Amino acid sequence: MKIEGKDYKTIWFENDCVKIIDQTKLPHKFIIKDLKTVKDAINSIKLMEVRGAPLIGATAAYGIVLAILESNDQTFLKKSAEGLINSRPTAINLKWAIDRMMKKLSGINSDKILEIALSEAKKICEEDINFCKNIGLHGLKIIEEIYNKKKKPVNILTHCNAGWLATINWGTATSPIYHAHKKGIPIHVWVDETRPRNQGANLTSYELNEEEIKNTIIADNTGGILMNRGEVDMCIVGTDRTLANGDVCNKVGTYLKALAAKDNNIPFYVALPSSTIDWETKSSKDIPIEKRNSDELSKIEGLDENGNIIKVQIYPKKSKSVNLAFDITPAKYVTKLITEKGICEASENGLKKLFK
Amino acid sequence: MKIEGKDYKTIWFENDCVKIIDQTKLPHKFIIKDLKTVKDAINSIKLMEVRGAPLIGATAAYGIVLAILESNDQTFLKKSAEGLINSRPTAINLKWAIDRMMKKLSGINSDKILEIALSEAKKICEEDINFCKNIGLHGLKIIEEIYNKKKKPVNILTHCNAGWLATINWGTATSPIYHAHKKGIPIHVWVDETRPRNQGANLTSYELNEEEIKNTIIADNTGGILMNRGEVDMCIVGTDRTLANGDVCNKVGTYLKALAAKDNNIPFYVALPSSTIDWETKSSKDIPIEKRNSDELSKIEGLDENGNIIKVQIYPKKSKSVNLAFDITPAKYVTKLITEKGICEASENGLKKLFK
Repeated sequence: MKIEGKDYKTIWFENDCVKIIDQTKLPHKFIIKDLKTVKDAINSIKLMEVRGAPLIGATAAYGIVLAILESNDQTFLKKSAEGLINSRPTAINLKWAIDRMMKKLSGINSDKILEIALSEAKKICEEDINFCKNIGLHGLKIIEEIYNKKKKPVNILTHCNAGWLATINWGTATSPIYHAHKKGIPIHVWVDETRPRNQGANLTSYELNEEEIKNTIIADNTGGILMNRGEVDMCIVGTDRTLANGDVCNKVGTYLKALAAKDNNIPFYVALPSSTIDWETKSSKDIPIEKRNSDELSKIEGLDENGNIIKVQIYPKKSKSVNLAFDITPAKYVTKLITEKGICEASENGLKKLFK
Repeated sequence: MKIEGKDYKTIWFENDCVKIIDQTKLPHKFIIKDLKTVKDAINSIKLMEVRGAPLIGATAAYGIVLAILESNDQTFLKKSAEGLINSRPTAINLKWAIDRMMKKLSGINSDKILEIALSEAKKICEEDINFCKNIGLHGLKIIEEIYNKKKKPVNILTHCNAGWLATINWGTATSPIYHAHKKGIPIHVWVDETRPRNQGANLTSYELNEEEIKNTIIADNTGGILMNRGEVDMCIVGTDRTLANGDVCNKVGTYLKALAAKDNNIPFYVALPSSTIDWETKSSKDIPIEKRNSDELSKIEGLDENGNIIKVQIYPKKSKSVNLAFDITPAKYVTKLITEKGICEASENGLKKLFK
């Protein structure tokens, strides 16, 4: 999608380097960063320079390519794979991407291994782009239906960034929005600021601006009263992990919006590529919820009046804070899942009809 | 209550001046400010140097005293009263305090009027302190009951600041907490950061720290997953306006926490002095929801590394934002109301039994 009028993807391979957009500097600065080693890839995931389940998966896959470029030692490759898997605990794609890469590379001799790894990492990216595109085409129908009834701009609320910056292109939750916009359907997006880290404001609003889609940032607290007042036609969010039973693990706060949507009879959709489905974990209680550094809460970066990026401490000096990154939205609050293969019920039955 | 070990109230009259704590500078700086004219009082309410329904009411009452000090002209007094009432739209105490002052002063001749106004403003403050104290004593029983069952620290979640800084002393939602703490019951408070303006982090956590009560700041998005995990025993919040039917208008985001509490079978209490009850408005749809400056969202103040208070722009330059300050929690999600006269159902019946 576009940044300052030019088309980009979030990750690509060039001159023995993995190129990423450093998302910790957005929206204030647009910086393309080189990852040269597997350690660079791990740090990039840990520091959330790349984030969003699909992009994390793709970065991990390219991390394996970087590991192979560094050394042809099998022990190093295995250790690298473990390091990549452990770089963040919640997103299922990480494990999925590494498992796929390692399976592909198992038994391959060293003169072919780089070529095969690179081709597989690229394939993971191409598949993700296709998945996201198809999610968009399926979700488009839902938006179209609302527009055909309403004949006025469709108000869509989204949480966090499940935009193209969280994937390789198109995004998951944003893909139906981009497709609707391209089709000429008037859209307005309520963008949850999404504390901490403000990925809604910093990334979703930023990417919608760059595609010239009308959007308004709101505090995470605001969705309820907007739904109350009839100012939201539908919600659509992404997911970091979807259980086979339809429970959705996504950025913390998603659950609260789903509750408000239910209370106000507003449809709540979750968009996902099938790579985020966790067929094995039976209960959402078994999903590890990542606890991140509390500095992400107590400190915040912004532009000072001279245009410099400055970090300020916003909490009282004596205060403690806790930073849980995800929550669980039970399937009963999810109207439908929008996948690359179509729209289905948030249930084992629904998912199995499409995927098994 | 205490700040740096010294006892304070939030507002007092001294040397023909109204003294307030400038709450826009907290938690980074503790500054006592003089209000000398009714315009000072109006600005102080508008700029939220004073905030919280009871303290706004008290400031408005003292505003009338300042108007009388400025001029003995009846037209000026009436215009001042109007200006004070219109300084913020949502809190009902503002109108309540001004109506009470103007009723008291009606027909009083000019040589007595200052003395009577001052005495009435002080009375409003003293009554509020008593109300808050009694709210605390009633609410204490609820906390005690949980502690007697659990025999472990009681985890209480609160939103925004309904602390002593929102009243004259004790606070509303915090009063049961302070009373429990004084009685030796171990307490831990989850403090919602409370975007925008962060009154939870800036004020509630600050005042709890100063009273040495354990507390942890969380993003507003986090309450749901904490409740899910059994880490919240009860919620308690304040209210800016309570309808006779028990619907509660409070800082935006309150509604989302009430929904999560309901979904997790956690009791959700609203603490209020009867001055916040609006017996007249029939439907919550008729409550004007204040729309504040969007700069409160897109800009944030904090300390830079040299300890200077600096404001930074945190949103993308091209982004718009909307700042709604309140939302409505329907009575059905409120477990009980805690008032100065006792605990009651959030319903017309419940409130009437105590107050009519």
